[in-house]
Amino acid sequence: MSDDSDSLYYVDGDVVPADEASIPVTDRGFLYGDAAFETLRAYGGDVFHWEAHAERLAETCDVLGMDHGLSDDHLKGAIDETLAANNLSDAYVRLSVTRGSQPGRLTPAEDVDPRVVVIVEPLPRGGRGSDPVWDGPATVQTVRTRRIPDRALPARAKTHNYLNGILARTELRVTGADEALMLDSEGYVTEGATSNLFFVDDDALCTPSLDGPVLPGITRRVVLDLARQENIPIRERRFTPDDVRGANEAFLTNSTWELRPVETVDGIGVGDGPVTTLLSRLYDDYVERRHYEK
Amino acid sequence: MSDDSDSLYYVDGDVVPADEASIPVTDRGFLYGDAAFETLRAYGGDVFHWEAHAERLAETCDVLGMDHGLSDDHLKGAIDETLAANNLSDAYVRLSVTRGSQPGRLTPAEDVDPRVVVIVEPLPRGGRGSDPVWDGPATVQTVRTRRIPDRALPARAKTHNYLNGILARTELRVTGADEALMLDSEGYVTEGATSNLFFVDDDALCTPSLDGPVLPGITRRVVLDLARQENIPIRERRFTPDDVRGANEAFLTNSTWELRPVETVDGIGVGDGPVTTLLSRLYDDYVERRHYEK
Repeated sequence: MSDDSDSLYYVDGDVVPADEASIPVTDRGFLYGDAAFETLRAYGGDVFHWEAHAERLAETCDVLGMDHGLSDDHLKGAIDETLAANNLSDAYVRLSVTRGSQPGRLTPAEDVDPRVVVIVEPLPRGGRGSDPVWDGPATVQTVRTRRIPDRALPARAKTHNYLNGILARTELRVTGADEALMLDSEGYVTEGATSNLFFVDDDALCTPSLDGPVLPGITRRVVLDLARQENIPIRERRFTPDDVRGANEAFLTNSTWELRPVETVDGIGVGDGPVTTLLSRLYDDYVERRHYEK
Repeated sequence: MSDDSDSLYYVDGDVVPADEASIPVTDRGFLYGDAAFETLRAYGGDVFHWEAHAERLAETCDVLGMDHGLSDDHLKGAIDETLAANNLSDAYVRLSVTRGSQPGRLTPAEDVDPRVVVIVEPLPRGGRGSDPVWDGPATVQTVRTRRIPDRALPARAKTHNYLNGILARTELRVTGADEALMLDSEGYVTEGATSNLFFVDDDALCTPSLDGPVLPGITRRVVLDLARQENIPIRERRFTPDDVRGANEAFLTNSTWELRPVETVDGIGVGDGPVTTLLSRLYDDYVERRHYEK
């Protein structure tokens, strides 16, 4: 994202104009991507499922061995302050916590003086009857770049080390596809560069299980809960690319996109259908009730 | 590293006091670790093997699909300007090139407006009879964190995505070892978190080959060249942790450390010996001739 001079960002305790928002070049978030982050969506003035995001951020910091000492309330306060300063109630929110600047080189010190950064951008209203933020259904392509194994860098840690996904997306320059479908070392389907994958096969809702290198998406979890409430059969396990290519329906999820139908996988038509439509409407209803019918 | 207010750093065309050196929070180097870097050592006013570092940086940018448009001379000029501004002739140098700020989110645009950052720190003189920069021989420990496979993120790309090595180093908190020895997915030895590994077995100099996920270190290459000139037999292939534990001698290399003897591997005494001592002296001679006898 480029500097938006109309926006205000939160950096290390202060809300400042976007074009003045910067961090020291000695910050480990810059030197090594040594930072945790969350992407959230605000609806009607409040972020969706803050507790789940806070919990995942804590898990990321735990993986990184980073005891930043900031309370969830402090971090939520930084988000709320940034939204209020921008007079935004419906927004994209990116919250980062870095390990800060430290003496020495690569080995992180246990004593952390973290930096907190909050970036926001306006988004349209969500909820019942809302327009999606994406332009259209996604074209998806399996890529050569493999997902990093959990033994090298656990996928449940959402960090500023995002080159694995960037390399995957860079492969799409040739075909112009929207999302890269990444496989694990053994060739099983994991997730998109910034999204979880769902597909429908024989009326069951299928998604790669979290046993593989898959981010435990907040939207993913909500969609699974909504499907359970509708008694839609759920299959969470390992899947091959052919399982996805042969699906009746498929969609991607993340906090910003919510549910985004998949038009094609590797050029093979998949498209949406009744299960995708139902779950999208249930998601919109859920957002409406939580955020706009208060 | 923490801000050193006596130092001057180079950021995006300007040399500024270290405590004012910062980059926008929208820079992809911060958001995603989407940046290439090189660590260099300056001796007697000039960096060691600039051409080799420039070539590796170009290789990294090629892997990242980042056509930054800056000439090697421009980058070298940034380093020289920073060293001169700090009145430093013997120094640690970190050169970074980021993909800059871009519109949109994860997918990088082909049109790049890069940011260049140069950080320097004083180091003692190198060359003949010089004191090493390390405190003593390294204690090395094999860690559970595995090296990222090349199919996920090629090891030849030296990027700001360094959490793999940081997780490896974090494991050393328990034992207090100096360097983490990382294995690949199949359990073969690769490298340290910030160093290449050499060991001596039956008078042959052994080091993991670049077929595995191993950074092509500049110091590694110089050491191999020096060994060849001395007709020391060289074995570059895959090795197991037991091969290293059973070695007669072992040492680590990187641009800052040069050659650093290994005292123990997983608590087993290895230590230095005649080959390590010879190659260290040859390295010092080489540096002396190139940088101080001009």
